[in-house]
Parts: sequence; C-alpha cells; structure tokens
Amino acid sequence: MNDLPVIRLRPKSKPQAIRHGFPWVYADEAVLDRRTRNLAPGDFAVLEDAERRPMALVSVNPASKIVGRVMDRDVDAQIDAEWIRKRLRIALQMRERLYDTPFYRLVHAEADGLPGLIIDRFGEVAVMQPNAAWSDRMALQIAQALVDVTGVKTVILNGQGRARSLEGLDERMEALVGEAPTQAVPVIMNGATYFADVMGGQKTGIFFDQRPNHAFAQRLARGSRVLDVFSHVGGFGLAALAAGANHATCVDGSAAALKLAVEGARAVGREGDLETVQSDAFKAMEAMAAEGRQFDLVVCDPPAFAPSRQTLEAGLRAYERVAKLAAPLVAPGGYLALCSCSHAADLTHFRNASARGIGRGGRRSVQIYSGQAGPDHPTLPQLAETGYLKSLFFRLDG
Amino acid sequence: MNDLPVIRLRPKSKPQAIRHGFPWVYADEAVLDRRTRNLAPGDFAVLEDAERRPMALVSVNPASKIVGRVMDRDVDAQIDAEWIRKRLRIALQMRERLYDTPFYRLVHAEADGLPGLIIDRFGEVAVMQPNAAWSDRMALQIAQALVDVTGVKTVILNGQGRARSLEGLDERMEALVGEAPTQAVPVIMNGATYFADVMGGQKTGIFFDQRPNHAFAQRLARGSRVLDVFSHVGGFGLAALAAGANHATCVDGSAAALKLAVEGARAVGREGDLETVQSDAFKAMEAMAAEGRQFDLVVCDPPAFAPSRQTLEAGLRAYERVAKLAAPLVAPGGYLALCSCSHAADLTHFRNASARGIGRGGRRSVQIYSGQAGPDHPTLPQLAETGYLKSLFFRLDG
Repeated sequence: MNDLPVIRLRPKSKPQAIRHGFPWVYADEAVLDRRTRNLAPGDFAVLEDAERRPMALVSVNPASKIVGRVMDRDVDAQIDAEWIRKRLRIALQMRERLYDTPFYRLVHAEADGLPGLIIDRFGEVAVMQPNAAWSDRMALQIAQALVDVTGVKTVILNGQGRARSLEGLDERMEALVGEAPTQAVPVIMNGATYFADVMGGQKTGIFFDQRPNHAFAQRLARGSRVLDVFSHVGGFGLAALAAGANHATCVDGSAAALKLAVEGARAVGREGDLETVQSDAFKAMEAMAAEGRQFDLVVCDPPAFAPSRQTLEAGLRAYERVAKLAAPLVAPGGYLALCSCSHAADLTHFRNASARGIGRGGRRSVQIYSGQAGPDHPTLPQLAETGYLKSLFFRLDG
Repeated sequence: MNDLPVIRLRPKSKPQAIRHGFPWVYADEAVLDRRTRNLAPGDFAVLEDAERRPMALVSVNPASKIVGRVMDRDVDAQIDAEWIRKRLRIALQMRERLYDTPFYRLVHAEADGLPGLIIDRFGEVAVMQPNAAWSDRMALQIAQALVDVTGVKTVILNGQGRARSLEGLDERMEALVGEAPTQAVPVIMNGATYFADVMGGQKTGIFFDQRPNHAFAQRLARGSRVLDVFSHVGGFGLAALAAGANHATCVDGSAAALKLAVEGARAVGREGDLETVQSDAFKAMEAMAAEGRQFDLVVCDPPAFAPSRQTLEAGLRAYERVAKLAAPLVAPGGYLALCSCSHAADLTHFRNASARGIGRGGRRSVQIYSGQAGPDHPTLPQLAETGYLKSLFFRLDG
C-alpha cells in the first residue's frame, strides 16, 4: 500500500457524496494529522472516512478551500507518467469520436479524471491551464504525456486567471514543449477558420464551449445580416459567414481580437463581408439603435457579469440591459441569441432577465433553443448543476 | 370594436403576467358576466383587467381549468381564415429556415400563436391535434388554411389524448382534407427514413421532438453496436444505422411499431443490421444482462413515467430503475442516453435519478450532453420552465 499521509473526513461530514462520485474535500470537512499538516500544495495523500477506511487517493492543497481533490479511487495508484497518459488516452478517444478535426477541449478537469486541469487542443498546439496545485507541479510531465498521446508539437502553459489565484498559484506563461507560436494559431470549427492568440489572448485563446451554439446560429444565418456583440475573435460572426450569411458585424472592446476576426474572414475570402466595430458594447448598441440599424440575427455573448453570488443581482441587471438594448436591433421576425457564462446566474435567472429585457426593449419573443457547452466539456453529474454556459435563442415578433 | 362578451380578471389576480406574455387565464382568476356564463367552448371573448381595461382577445372554454387562452393582443382582431393563414405563414417561415426537408412540427401551440393547436408535417401529409376548444371547432378552417399556406394534400385530425380530455373534447380521428393514408408515411429525419402510422400510431405517428438528440447520438454511433430501448418506430436505432452504426437492436412492447422500424431499416438497405425485440423493456434489459450482452451505445427513451405531480415519486423510481438496468449493458467506455418526457420530473430530479441508477448499476459516469426538444418546438419564455423533454447522455467508465 502507498506510504502516504492521511486526510481524514470529520465525523459529521458525509462520506457518501464522495463515495458516489463527488470529487472534492472542503477544508472544513477534513482532519489533518501531523504529517498531513506539513503537506505542500500538490502532494498526494490517502483520504479516509471518519472510521479510518481508505476512500481515495487525493491531491492536497492546504492553501485552497478545496483541500483535497480525488485523483483515483484506487488508493494504491501511482500518479506517474503512465497514469497521466492513461487518462489522456480516454479523453482523446472521446474527442476523436465526436470531432473530425483536432480542435477541441481535450481535458475538462474533474470530469476527465484530471482534477483542475484544462487542456485545449489547436491542431499541433496544446494549451494547458493547470488550475490545481498537483497539475502545476507536474506540468512538465503532463506536457510530455500530451506529446506522447496526441502527437502535438507545442505545449503552452497558460497560468493565468481566477481559478489559479483561488489555489494560491502564481501567474505563469511559457512554452513547456516546442517554441511559443509567434503568430495566431488557426482553428477550424463548424467550417469557419478562427485565429487563436495562444500567448496573449483571453483564456486559452479561443472559446470552444460555444461550438454547438455557433452551429445553431448557423442554421439561422443563411442570407442574413448578423450582428455579433462581444464578438472576441469572431465566434458567432465568422460561423455565420461560413454558413452563408450575407454580412456580419462584430463588436468588441479589443482591437487585437477584432484583428483576428478579420484574419478569420480573410482566410475564407469573406473579409469584404465583415464589419468590425471597436467599442464598448453597450454604447455601440445604443448608437446602432439611434441610427435605426437592424439585423436578421443578433448575438450577445458578454463576459461573465455574475461570476459570484455577490455579483448576482448586478449581473442580472446587466444581462437584462443587454437584452433591452439588443431587442430593437433585431429585424421583424428575426432572431436574438443571448449568452451567459456566469456560474452564479442559473438558467431560470438568466432566462427571466433576458425575457424581461426583451419585453422592455419593446418586443415579444418565443424561445427556440437553449444551448450549453459542448460535449468536449463533460461534467460530473454531481457537479452538473454548475453548468456555467447558457445560450438562449429567441425568435422576435414580426 | 368587436361586439364580444367579456371575461374580467378578478381584482386580486395579476394582470402583469398576462400583459408580459403569459397566455392563459385560469378559471379562478376570472369573473364571468351574464353573457360570458353562457359561452360555449371555443367562443371568443374580450379579456379585461379588474379596471375594465381591454387586454386581449381570448378563446373561452368554461369546461377547462384554462378558461381563457390569449388569441391576439389586438381585441379587434377577427379570428378568421386570413388570421389563421397569417400565423401559419410565420410558423412555416421559421421551419423552412431550420429544415431542408418538409418534415417537422409546424405548429407548437401557444408559442406559435395558435393556442392548444399542434400540427406535425410529414411532407404532403399534415396531422393536427386540436387540443383547445376553439381549434376543435375551427378544425376545418384550419385544415383549409394549412393547404393554402403549405400545399399539403392531406390533413388528418388526430383527436386523442389527455390534453383533449382536460378540455372536455371527445375523441375524433378523421381525414379533413384528402384521403386517410392506407400505408405508413415516410419521414426523412437526420438522414434516416422513418415510417409514421398517422392513423393508428402514438400521438401524430412520429416524435419530432427528439430530432436534435437523435443527431447527437449519431455522433457517437459510427462503427458501434447500439441498443434502443423503448424504440417506438426506431427513433434512435435507425438514426444510429444512418450514421454508420454496425448494428442496432430495438426493444419495444409494440409489434406494430417494431414492424415500422424494420421498414425504415429496409428503406436504406440495412434491415440485416437491425434486430427487433418485442418485449417489456425492463424484462428485456434483465434478460440481456443475464446473457452478458453489451453495447457501445444504449438509449432508453421511455414513456412519461411522471406525467403529473402525483406520479413524481413513483416516476423517479422508474427512471432510476431504467438507468440501473441499462448501465450494465454499456460496454466499458461506452455511452448511455437516458430520456424523460415527463413534465413533472424537472432536469435536476431526472438527472439525480439517472445518476443514482447508474451508480446502483455499478458504474461511474460523466455527463456529456443535455438535450431538449428541437427548435420546431418553441416555448414562450413564460412557460419555458415546463420544457418536458430531457435527453441526457453519459459516458460510462472503462
């Protein structure tokens, strides 16, 4: 048996949830023994229930509210290169079944058996976000395993963002394997070409999670004029052009993101049909309404306005305001897509705010589609309530 | 102004909900005047708020708990052939944008502005379910408008089911336009051919609502052995074969439905790859487990086990049992899809029952997809909570 330190659940905590698949041990649920107290972030330990029965092998981070993350139900498991390769192979097998081209989220943390670890794949380039201490410490081994299993030539470690600060991890950004790309990396998705700035962009450079919702927008796009607000590198706008939209307008605050959107349109010979507007999105929508501009399909995919419970009320007001400003920009009988990537705003909250905003924008609506993140973002059933991405499509009155 | 009787909201009822789009007036919310009391099911009236301000034109059914259904916000509207054609044109426009072939739910009741009316289209054949009194009474005019707007040659009135009995409507089944088909009608969906028994089958003969979930199953199906439990006419099984599954097994209690599944397989030259099992689904799953049979993809799409609040607990136990029996039939690393069309079992209830059942069936799982009815089943945001169809896909452990 592994000679590892022990973390024990307190007598009143509920071992059943963890036995049934819940993957986390919160700090207030655990008793640390003398050896455990001295654990460094990223060390491994054996989790026991209050009766000292071994439950799982966990990674430990005394600096986090999540003090333990279940790595393996087998307490004798060795978390080594072969263990990592095995998990990566399982993750890869599912993506290769789902996607014809090597562009996807390859590892989505707990649900892929690699706690706190995010890996996005852009062809021969992989970008990893080690958001748990164990994966930060083993980053080089993970990168090598990635090369072994997938054949990627470059592995970038993107160590930024809120998830890492919650774990007490520093900001890092480096190429672990190969050279950091000096140009944006092309990403093929839904027949469109996007460009991901893997070293300087938001998150890993592209958002794979909206892929099924981009695809739904494509079904509405043929022959249409499309407005993509908070477009980033052109997620919905370029998808619409690829599906036969006549014209797309992308609005974003970032000139760098809009430049990549233009590159994406150029890659398919459609740069003449793409208009970019670098502006605050609220101001841009107000200006377009003042000009009486309308579009057949309007999509608003803002940043998380309600990332936490504390920001929920203000966030919902912001979502309502987006809906209210966007509704008048939709042509009679046209379509409006409203998205939220806020954990704290659940579907009911978000739908109500959206419907209220559309009504205050002077329009009536029916909902035709409610989308989530794609299947390369699996979730543990025990954590499925937290599904953060909502993408609601409405048909507006004529 | 229309010289119509008046239904008035009681002082304490909330006119705001109806003003914001809620489409129903419940019996205990309304005051009927002398004329209104004598209304026949299907008559029209003007809805007023407690201060006698006109709010909407409604259809009335004193025999229903839903005493009024909003037909038009314009109280001067004439509910005639042209009014019906206009609503049908709007509904058709959206379906023609969404689908390349004329097979879809054309009218989904309130959300398509035609309260209580369901119309499914199978090419040149339409099947309508007039589940509200006004639509039952105007059925012939609706059928003629359908011919005018869509060009269908045959319109079947299918007047069966619980929704009608709640409205106090009798059972009816007749061809309103053209001749009742003597053979099953072919339906093309997701590249598969189904056969709908529009005169004798369940509901309108085919279930269009699962189309996006059939499509998701297709992404998992290539080269697979597929088990479709509660298959009806082969919904998931034939979709899987069309997407390159090696073999499909359809289990259903109805010999007639399975016969249509075989016809569907034959239409694409795959009848040699379809096995049908006429049996109680629970018994069939137990027997397969006893034989040690396993499949790469197992789908269970049972009838509504929890159609009402009263049946919720028993229904959830039945869903859990389905999951428990199905899980062992999934090959290592394979996929399990569990569906519910129960209004009373919301997503959280259903997911929990499913995850518990999979666990009791000895397997661990991650959720990769959560599907609903397709966009030809729009919903009013005010009624969106009642979205009845849930289709959860899980990847099971290796």
